[in-house]
Amino acid sequence: MQQKLVIGIVGAGRIGRLHAENLVRNPRVAVKTVSDLYLDAVRDWAGNYGFRLTQDYKEILRDPEIQAVFICSSTDTHIPIITEAAQAGKHIFCEKPISFDLEKTAQTHELVRRAGVKFQVGFNRRFDFNFARVRELVEQGRIGDPHIVRITSRDPAPPSYDYVKVSGGLFMDMAIHDFDMARFLSGSEVEEVFAQGAVLVDPVIGELGDIDTAVTTLRFKNGAIGVIDNSRKAVYGYDQRVEVFGSKGGVTVQNDFPNSAEISTEDGVYRDKPKYFFLDRYREAYVKETEAFVSAVLDGRDVPVSYYDGLQAERIAHAAKRSLQEKRPVRLDEIG
Amino acid sequence: MQQKLVIGIVGAGRIGRLHAENLVRNPRVAVKTVSDLYLDAVRDWAGNYGFRLTQDYKEILRDPEIQAVFICSSTDTHIPIITEAAQAGKHIFCEKPISFDLEKTAQTHELVRRAGVKFQVGFNRRFDFNFARVRELVEQGRIGDPHIVRITSRDPAPPSYDYVKVSGGLFMDMAIHDFDMARFLSGSEVEEVFAQGAVLVDPVIGELGDIDTAVTTLRFKNGAIGVIDNSRKAVYGYDQRVEVFGSKGGVTVQNDFPNSAEISTEDGVYRDKPKYFFLDRYREAYVKETEAFVSAVLDGRDVPVSYYDGLQAERIAHAAKRSLQEKRPVRLDEIG
Amino acid sequence: MQQKLVIGIVGAGRIGRLHAENLVRNPRVAVKTVSDLYLDAVRDWAGNYGFRLTQDYKEILRDPEIQAVFICSSTDTHIPIITEAAQAGKHIFCEKPISFDLEKTAQTHELVRRAGVKFQVGFNRRFDFNFARVRELVEQGRIGDPHIVRITSRDPAPPSYDYVKVSGGLFMDMAIHDFDMARFLSGSEVEEVFAQGAVLVDPVIGELGDIDTAVTTLRFKNGAIGVIDNSRKAVYGYDQRVEVFGSKGGVTVQNDFPNSAEISTEDGVYRDKPKYFFLDRYREAYVKETEAFVSAVLDGRDVPVSYYDGLQAERIAHAAKRSLQEKRPVRLDEIG
Amino acid sequence: MQQKLVIGIVGAGRIGRLHAENLVRNPRVAVKTVSDLYLDAVRDWAGNYGFRLTQDYKEILRDPEIQAVFICSSTDTHIPIITEAAQAGKHIFCEKPISFDLEKTAQTHELVRRAGVKFQVGFNRRFDFNFARVRELVEQGRIGDPHIVRITSRDPAPPSYDYVKVSGGLFMDMAIHDFDMARFLSGSEVEEVFAQGAVLVDPVIGELGDIDTAVTTLRFKNGAIGVIDNSRKAVYGYDQRVEVFGSKGGVTVQNDFPNSAEISTEDGVYRDKPKYFFLDRYREAYVKETEAFVSAVLDGRDVPVSYYDGLQAERIAHAAKRSLQEKRPVRLDEIG
Repeated sequence: MQQKLVIGIVGAGRIGRLHAENLVRNPRVAVKTVSDLYLDAVRDWAGNYGFRLTQDYKEILRDPEIQAVFICSSTDTHIPIITEAAQAGKHIFCEKPISFDLEKTAQTHELVRRAGVKFQVGFNRRFDFNFARVRELVEQGRIGDPHIVRITSRDPAPPSYDYVKVSGGLFMDMAIHDFDMARFLSGSEVEEVFAQGAVLVDPVIGELGDIDTAVTTLRFKNGAIGVIDNSRKAVYGYDQRVEVFGSKGGVTVQNDFPNSAEISTEDGVYRDKPKYFFLDRYREAYVKETEAFVSAVLDGRDVPVSYYDGLQAERIAHAAKRSLQEKRPVRLDEIG
Repeated sequence: MQQKLVIGIVGAGRIGRLHAENLVRNPRVAVKTVSDLYLDAVRDWAGNYGFRLTQDYKEILRDPEIQAVFICSSTDTHIPIITEAAQAGKHIFCEKPISFDLEKTAQTHELVRRAGVKFQVGFNRRFDFNFARVRELVEQGRIGDPHIVRITSRDPAPPSYDYVKVSGGLFMDMAIHDFDMARFLSGSEVEEVFAQGAVLVDPVIGELGDIDTAVTTLRFKNGAIGVIDNSRKAVYGYDQRVEVFGSKGGVTVQNDFPNSAEISTEDGVYRDKPKYFFLDRYREAYVKETEAFVSAVLDGRDVPVSYYDGLQAERIAHAAKRSLQEKRPVRLDEIG
Repeated sequence: MQQKLVIGIVGAGRIGRLHAENLVRNPRVAVKTVSDLYLDAVRDWAGNYGFRLTQDYKEILRDPEIQAVFICSSTDTHIPIITEAAQAGKHIFCEKPISFDLEKTAQTHELVRRAGVKFQVGFNRRFDFNFARVRELVEQGRIGDPHIVRITSRDPAPPSYDYVKVSGGLFMDMAIHDFDMARFLSGSEVEEVFAQGAVLVDPVIGELGDIDTAVTTLRFKNGAIGVIDNSRKAVYGYDQRVEVFGSKGGVTVQNDFPNSAEISTEDGVYRDKPKYFFLDRYREAYVKETEAFVSAVLDGRDVPVSYYDGLQAERIAHAAKRSLQEKRPVRLDEIG
Repeated sequence: MQQKLVIGIVGAGRIGRLHAENLVRNPRVAVKTVSDLYLDAVRDWAGNYGFRLTQDYKEILRDPEIQAVFICSSTDTHIPIITEAAQAGKHIFCEKPISFDLEKTAQTHELVRRAGVKFQVGFNRRFDFNFARVRELVEQGRIGDPHIVRITSRDPAPPSYDYVKVSGGLFMDMAIHDFDMARFLSGSEVEEVFAQGAVLVDPVIGELGDIDTAVTTLRFKNGAIGVIDNSRKAVYGYDQRVEVFGSKGGVTVQNDFPNSAEISTEDGVYRDKPKYFFLDRYREAYVKETEAFVSAVLDGRDVPVSYYDGLQAERIAHAAKRSLQEKRPVRLDEIG
């Protein structure tokens, strides 16, 4: 009988629940314990799965049977939990961003490395069927050397004001996925960042000190230029497209639609709008990222998204933030 | 605690296994027993699921705890198993076609009706996200009265010669899905069939008494005209498209692709070919059809694909076969 | 100075005017005379071009300077004018169909051949950028041997009742283009025809003895099967698509749109409907067919659409008509 | 008889010839005289048209019959010719850019205004069927307030080194079209520019002091953000796409293709690459821009692309150049 990976989940909000439900379907996994401060909400959906429930995540870390931990609690709790988990010898899957404090993120990197545990960051989009195919084509040299990387990343609706306040801002909360995508697709590190930002969707977001619209340009080490456009509100749904253009050609991917029905009438040609919600759009990608983590641990492979990847994305987010504040391009080596 | 539907599966080849694996993920289902003549092959994949395995399907029918049975054995065994299952009061999910013998199919209909059990036929394509959306749009009147229904249905590669021999022929084995689709999309019964057939893919298929290419036209009760084109071999993959054209417009759906990556180079614009295999193309549809059956039984709803639907599709297949042989349009009321 | 082809145009209705306006822009052409029974209507648009205008087409045929004649008058006048023009040694471009009377069409073929003049039939669609590309790809063997040819051909709105009465019926007036397209795309002759027809758009069309909706299947000499669907009314515009499917793959072409703008809103994704009118859709094709005719005469090349092509399309139209009447497949060798 | 606009053309290279050939097909126009320093090359194509040919453009300006002049000579000659033409009371159509010297462009603006002649700049892309439709949709409010304007503009191949030397650089020569497009699509003025540039296509272009790849971000007066990506070499052809994203949705347009044929084979799905050359891509747009100019003069309408539009695009190009040099965002009011 095959060995199963015994997992504990810290934080069982929307994303913790998603991982739990994906993990229980993985025949190589046993989810043993789930911790959350608000157990009532968890009981509603977790009842049938037979998890142990606790309010104290330390129970998970103390449990010698548990080999790996998914950290899905709020960002401010990541660093202490990572630290304790690494010290307890648990393999770690951690949601993005690792933290808002770049220095702490960097210090903890060292600790994780010394602990010798696997550490994977939750950049789920790398596992998307479209983006993974683009990366593959770029790697195969199908478009030659990358010259321009274009990423469109727009949410269907802004988060609540309460969330905006603690989100770390558009760059750290939302664009961080795109910063990782830029590194992933180009296969190159970012050297310099210039960010344009605006409050066009909702003035309250501005009053809370954040922006809701941004265009960020990146200069890569290999000379290529990247550009990311973000909006907190695309009324037609979740807008997630990329393009890599290079010396031998270009590759684009489009949004994902619930169906391909095209209706032609007197009024024009109509089709349904793209998948609206990230849980819908990236459903398979979330499954694949947990499978990859489980395989990394059980089969002794490298994780596909490393601590360093998490660190670099944060660094770019900080550079973007400073660029916006200081209205100038910011080199990554100015940061951290 | 919610009641679970206890299910037995008769026949655990490719399609039986597929249903089993989908059913175990359904929290409302308990798959208790699986029967197959060749248990060694079944053990390979069924080991972890904890099913009872038997070579004798009658064990399933005798088990009072089992409420429903999935009949996934070879077509020639369907009628006796349906008969016994209905007499044992089991709800029935049966793969298509119900049988090759229209008279027996019709007689057994009566028996199933009297037994008062639920009976669903495995026309999985009705649950496809594309075709279901077309049906919905037609039902909503978005394209007005249907005038022309066009179905393209081509397999990526012909089946083995051994399978061709026992398949019942292209119309009964393959086009039967399309005959059901024609009724489903148009919302109307078929009155008359004219079939053109040819052996263009592989002469051996012709020597075995079958065809590999066909264009079948249908005349519907509501006056609309349907046309189905079939091929046993579309080298680029599984080709499954439909169009309904009506008084207020038309709706089309395209094939399903593994990704939307479009690569532009000096040589042209390229994208990956459509999903190649029916298990891949209709993965979700298979899940949904079993969910619909489970819900029909547990929640006391009508099955979405009835015995009558199975019967009518067979009738059209017989009419197509006769039309091909007699080189003339055949009215459905000439059949059975 | 390059020699110019001096041309006379017989019949200056919509299509005669179109050819006249395309021809005057061709630097290798001099349009000398235009004849029409109703000169007032012609004067409105022809005034500036400096044509000689006459009510008597015989003036054109008698003029020794005129080398070629475009016959754009009503179908019933074609045969006598072709006859006289051929006898006068004029090269002939004739609109489709050559005539409604297959026997006369066949007899006149002989006469034209003996006269040794060039004769081109106005099957403009062969010059369409999409269909010409499909033909080219088929000829290059890119899709292997053709197995299935699918043609969709739907008008945006039915013609006037007056026109329906004299049109020769849907097969002779409208589908004749598609019959020619089927031969063009497949590179094979048609052997057998089966037609389904219906009156679904407008009952008056039925009262006038015609149909408005049809699905016609063709069996080609090379074994391939063709299917054409026609409607007199596609509310979303002129619907002209083809597909050729073969042993090595398939090729499709879509409708032509006025622009590629795609608007995504809360309500879905919208684009403008296809080009609505055949003069718009085939504008370039009309130019190219006259260029090809002029080049055939001046450069001593073969015409790209021969008298024989016109004859065969008529023959298929007659077979389709008989198939509809007699409710059976009709072999082409039963006709004419 | 309708009055014709008598036109002289100064400079009969590629673009002068194009305008000449479009103008002769316009029934409201008489092209009287064409001037060029190298008359031999002009004679090759202009022979049949019956133009007067001269090496001295002043002949055109002195001719009292000529009402309007097309200035298609090299950029460095524009300002003196505009000046003389305006003083001679000729209406002016001038190719882009008006000049490389912003101060002179601004001064001449005053002179043209005082002369009271019509002046149109050759931003042909405003007349493209795709971009014009986007502008129309934005104007109608279909996407609400614009938030993000995205322009992709890539040439199929770099110009000759000789041309690069005198081109004024990528921003002035190539991106100037996109700067105008940004203003046109957004309906707003640009306030600030930040340019990233790189030499990725050909190092010689760098040695000549130019770049071949650029990403430029724009900040508009209305708060929106624009981003333009340029490359001198898209191996797959002329890449010209735009997107406007706003509060109520987004609109995109794709490249223009020579046909819509899609070939599916074992190796994937293939289509021909986009139209390769700007003369092909914008053929109709060039016709329409001259029609608009002719109508502006003859019908007393405003020109659709004014001197001010030309001036503003130049100003943005200068700002982009300075931004690249000084590695910082540059406000438009710092320029000129």
